[in-house]
Amino acid sequence: MNITKLKRAFSHGTLCVAAAMALLLTTGGTAKAEVSPEAQFIFNTFSFLVHGFLVMWMAAGFAMLEAGLVRSKNTTMQCLKNIGLFSIASIMYFLVGYNLMYSGVDGGFMGSFAWWGADDSAAAAGKFMGDGGAKYAASSDFFFQLVFVATAASIVSGTVAERVKLWAFLVFTVVLTGLIYPIQGSWQWGGGWLNKLGFVDFAGSTLVHSVGGWAALAGAIIIGARKGKFGADGTVRPMPGSNLPLATLGTMILWLGWFGFNGGSQLAMGTAADAIAIANIYINTNIAAAGGVVTAIVLTQIIYKKVDLTMALNGALAGLVSITAGPDTPTLGLAVIIGAIGGVIVVIFVPLLDKLKIDDVVGAIPVHLVAGIWGTMAVPLSNTKASFVTQGIGVVSIGLFVLVVSAIVWLILKAVMGGVRVTAEEEEQGLDMAECGMEAYPEFRGSQTI
Amino acid sequence: MNITKLKRAFSHGTLCVAAAMALLLTTGGTAKAEVSPEAQFIFNTFSFLVHGFLVMWMAAGFAMLEAGLVRSKNTTMQCLKNIGLFSIASIMYFLVGYNLMYSGVDGGFMGSFAWWGADDSAAAAGKFMGDGGAKYAASSDFFFQLVFVATAASIVSGTVAERVKLWAFLVFTVVLTGLIYPIQGSWQWGGGWLNKLGFVDFAGSTLVHSVGGWAALAGAIIIGARKGKFGADGTVRPMPGSNLPLATLGTMILWLGWFGFNGGSQLAMGTAADAIAIANIYINTNIAAAGGVVTAIVLTQIIYKKVDLTMALNGALAGLVSITAGPDTPTLGLAVIIGAIGGVIVVIFVPLLDKLKIDDVVGAIPVHLVAGIWGTMAVPLSNTKASFVTQGIGVVSIGLFVLVVSAIVWLILKAVMGGVRVTAEEEEQGLDMAECGMEAYPEFRGSQTI
Amino acid sequence: MNITKLKRAFSHGTLCVAAAMALLLTTGGTAKAEVSPEAQFIFNTFSFLVHGFLVMWMAAGFAMLEAGLVRSKNTTMQCLKNIGLFSIASIMYFLVGYNLMYSGVDGGFMGSFAWWGADDSAAAAGKFMGDGGAKYAASSDFFFQLVFVATAASIVSGTVAERVKLWAFLVFTVVLTGLIYPIQGSWQWGGGWLNKLGFVDFAGSTLVHSVGGWAALAGAIIIGARKGKFGADGTVRPMPGSNLPLATLGTMILWLGWFGFNGGSQLAMGTAADAIAIANIYINTNIAAAGGVVTAIVLTQIIYKKVDLTMALNGALAGLVSITAGPDTPTLGLAVIIGAIGGVIVVIFVPLLDKLKIDDVVGAIPVHLVAGIWGTMAVPLSNTKASFVTQGIGVVSIGLFVLVVSAIVWLILKAVMGGVRVTAEEEEQGLDMAECGMEAYPEFRGSQTI
Repeated sequence: MNITKLKRAFSHGTLCVAAAMALLLTTGGTAKAEVSPEAQFIFNTFSFLVHGFLVMWMAAGFAMLEAGLVRSKNTTMQCLKNIGLFSIASIMYFLVGYNLMYSGVDGGFMGSFAWWGADDSAAAAGKFMGDGGAKYAASSDFFFQLVFVATAASIVSGTVAERVKLWAFLVFTVVLTGLIYPIQGSWQWGGGWLNKLGFVDFAGSTLVHSVGGWAALAGAIIIGARKGKFGADGTVRPMPGSNLPLATLGTMILWLGWFGFNGGSQLAMGTAADAIAIANIYINTNIAAAGGVVTAIVLTQIIYKKVDLTMALNGALAGLVSITAGPDTPTLGLAVIIGAIGGVIVVIFVPLLDKLKIDDVVGAIPVHLVAGIWGTMAVPLSNTKASFVTQGIGVVSIGLFVLVVSAIVWLILKAVMGGVRVTAEEEEQGLDMAECGMEAYPEFRGSQTI
Repeated sequence: MNITKLKRAFSHGTLCVAAAMALLLTTGGTAKAEVSPEAQFIFNTFSFLVHGFLVMWMAAGFAMLEAGLVRSKNTTMQCLKNIGLFSIASIMYFLVGYNLMYSGVDGGFMGSFAWWGADDSAAAAGKFMGDGGAKYAASSDFFFQLVFVATAASIVSGTVAERVKLWAFLVFTVVLTGLIYPIQGSWQWGGGWLNKLGFVDFAGSTLVHSVGGWAALAGAIIIGARKGKFGADGTVRPMPGSNLPLATLGTMILWLGWFGFNGGSQLAMGTAADAIAIANIYINTNIAAAGGVVTAIVLTQIIYKKVDLTMALNGALAGLVSITAGPDTPTLGLAVIIGAIGGVIVVIFVPLLDKLKIDDVVGAIPVHLVAGIWGTMAVPLSNTKASFVTQGIGVVSIGLFVLVVSAIVWLILKAVMGGVRVTAEEEEQGLDMAECGMEAYPEFRGSQTI
Repeated sequence: MNITKLKRAFSHGTLCVAAAMALLLTTGGTAKAEVSPEAQFIFNTFSFLVHGFLVMWMAAGFAMLEAGLVRSKNTTMQCLKNIGLFSIASIMYFLVGYNLMYSGVDGGFMGSFAWWGADDSAAAAGKFMGDGGAKYAASSDFFFQLVFVATAASIVSGTVAERVKLWAFLVFTVVLTGLIYPIQGSWQWGGGWLNKLGFVDFAGSTLVHSVGGWAALAGAIIIGARKGKFGADGTVRPMPGSNLPLATLGTMILWLGWFGFNGGSQLAMGTAADAIAIANIYINTNIAAAGGVVTAIVLTQIIYKKVDLTMALNGALAGLVSITAGPDTPTLGLAVIIGAIGGVIVVIFVPLLDKLKIDDVVGAIPVHLVAGIWGTMAVPLSNTKASFVTQGIGVVSIGLFVLVVSAIVWLILKAVMGGVRVTAEEEEQGLDMAECGMEAYPEFRGSQTI
């Protein structure tokens, strides 16, 4: 039970400072560990596994959200991209990513190139916790980190939907999950230069969500907007999602999965302080999402005189992204405000991107990039270890790196593959028939003329 | 490990009485606690979090169930109401509900008005379990209780579907989750007068499900039936759900979530007796749902010569609601009967409500209200601490309170908002376009003429 | 912490042999158990419950997969069959199955006929772990085993879709879950003759998946192909699934549930070695699925010049089935290859079955039967306790038993019920109206002429 974690756990609420000091005195003083080291090892491992499977489940959330928000002629493709990217992430992170992110970074800019293998030797030697002791099963940590990579890739999938070539997307995913994500991840979570600088990003508002958002932005600009989306006269043609209950389901899956995403990022559950921290993270995560939904509902009622479901869904997600950089330190009151501002971001930035003629099919850039930046900058509001300057350095450096490298990769793919988007005819026909040869809903052709 | 819990755990099955006494002698006698107090604290917290996220997931279950059972022109609205109500519940329970339900009730009729904040001071002082010791992270309990509130609100959403005004529903949800639910909840779970009287409702057949059902009933009566549902000549026009796989998915999500709902209501997992109790609860919960399904399948085959899927789904839910008041004490054989009677209730009460011209779009009143009453009254069959009289007092008092207050709130909303239902034109057009401005399935208009 | 489990846990990876020996010396020598027996009991129980609810969730996965892969006129029926079979399995396994599989098998061919009741007497006497001590709550084990039975029944449901009579299927399910599955299960997991022989099937590539596959094969042959599926001239008429996002969701649910299926099959989580083993199982399970997907994507691109989503989905499932017999021993590198070969099997055997005029609506036979055999035979590649001969004996003996008995049951049903398939008119009309009297998507009739 170390001081950092205690501080994190007990900084929640208002009345705990003295109590936390008392506990420090107690545990740092004479008392023995109440939970045996091996039991701590099991708790920590179980936390990674349970929270990891929740994050894995987010892959289904993204798949359903995106399948529901595209037009039905592009739905099969969206499903395929999502199951494909999760599979690619699973393999690339094993082959390259994990060690590039975590092995031997040592204050630097990347780890080492080597595939990953479980090292449970300390546990096998009966050494648990403490200096050099095993803190969790090696594979449980690998599993948890792996499912995060897939999240970043899922974000890109939604933005570039309805016109990207399947293989261009899949190859981009190989690079994103094998190189781009792990390298920038090493800067902070791998113990690299940003970490030494004091950057704080608890569960990845920047390291996961903004990364996905920057890569998506690069893709959206280079691939270009969908045919007919933006008129020469500045008009924006709505292209409504074909299945809103599916999008709602996807959002609720993501909301559920986020308890794993943020809760598991405590990285331990073997002490009472960890358990308290995780519980605080759960409720902050939940109320931030709620704040995003309520704001989006109220604002769309005011602005459009109707309540916009897709804005409410994206409001939930923006609330979740916003709290992700620091779900451990705010009070519930602050957490709901952080999330609510995420909702405001969605309502402002979705139409703004349209004005900029950046075609983001599912609204992933407002949700993951802009709210991710907001969430990262909001950390110092409740976490005294974070500073606005350092947070800004993290946001800008990772943003620049991912945007530039992603753009280069998309441009290389464009050059090598004869373009990264399908032909105008294929786009008109729909990617499902063009790229997959099968319709998502072959029997419901009623008015699929959009 | 206290006597009550042991009794609960070991009253399951037939051969455990002597064994339970032996354990009492052992643990109450000389043996030390086998699980360290801090480890118990972690187990208890983890149980709240895992079971809590399962209950949170039920929100998605209700959303899908209802989205599948309404007509497609009202589907977007149903999705919006569900994500909206969960968000409102999350915020209201923090601002008002939790402390109104749990703080200083002391045998009375309500707690205090104050927003909630985590108090982990005992844990911070290193005091775990026992008198005055921390039993779980404060926030984990808050999380678990919070997701229950949302369940009650979800029930209302289904019944009043397809004609309620969005904002009327949302404001009703504010009152339900901030005041009605917490006040009646304080009577029992907050340690109020019903609790002192000896009422037993383990996980909320009455406190959650019937509450939702009573509020829904008040709404259904005051809002009135859907246009064209009941002919002047006594005919009932079927308005079939638009997406039955979605309704099936919703039911299965709810079934899964119910393991959290009932299992987590043990409120602890730090001793073997708690673990045994939770395991018994899981299998009783499961088999009660199975009993409800099988009964509904057999009965609809007999009565209608066809097997009715929506009855089977509601049979599962009615089985689950029926076992919820006492999932801890029955044998598996009794549990399957309790659930099966839930299935009978659905098959009888769904057409009966139609006869009464009460328009319950998804069948929530039979499932949650009637089966909830049945489940509450069935507790004394296996739990010697419960009596039929006291159970009846609980059912009636909570029923009257919720029905009357809900009716008052609906009537006030009707007066203040110029009606709680949309116009006949809007109802005809569908709430999706009228209230949300977007269709759920814009491309599948084939024969949406119903 | 026994030697077998340690071996299992530490045989993963490459560098652990010496370390494992060191731990053996440590724990087998003087050190006390680090986790108290009662805490181990709780961990083991919690593992069964958490992993069990994940497997229960697979029932929803099968329901969605199958509902998405049938034509819309048969979707209600598919939903009904799935919720029905899960309910029947829940009741039959209590009444007959569990004790027939686990009670008094003792090297033989079946257990005893008696319904199941929880026996927690050892725990009640305070005896945990060790000889005669309770290792987990009896009901948690029952729950975990129960949800496995349902999986086997779900497999049959998909293959015989679109033409089987509802009641024929339900009665077959009664026999499968009450007798066929438990009897063959007793041979291995119940400690019967196959177990004594040294057969290895960690989580059920053969005992669950092939069993479902053999029963499905018998059904497919006896029931016959769908009307019009196979032309007299050897042509195969495609009958595309009506809702591919639903099928995708189902696959992702199954992928998630599989962490429970394989992870929970470690049957314990009370020691570090168990936790390590489960974590290894998670990542092997995940990467095997990924391998199946990537292979199916690449192969369908090469063969058909389009990437086939349904092949990719079945590739994931085949990868999962393939790893299930031995998810504990391979390295990640071997696991991805085992899963990838599962993907190859799907791409080869789906069209091969069509050539053989065996009509398997969802591809369950390639996925569960063929990949199940492959996975079982692949165990000796990484597990020195398994031999190819013994694995082959297990595959053949269980296969023969299940195929023959299933065929007899289907034939008896055919004789008794006047056929096990609906009439040609009912098949044409769709089973939803014929058997259930309700359409799955009543409003979307656009072009439901297939």
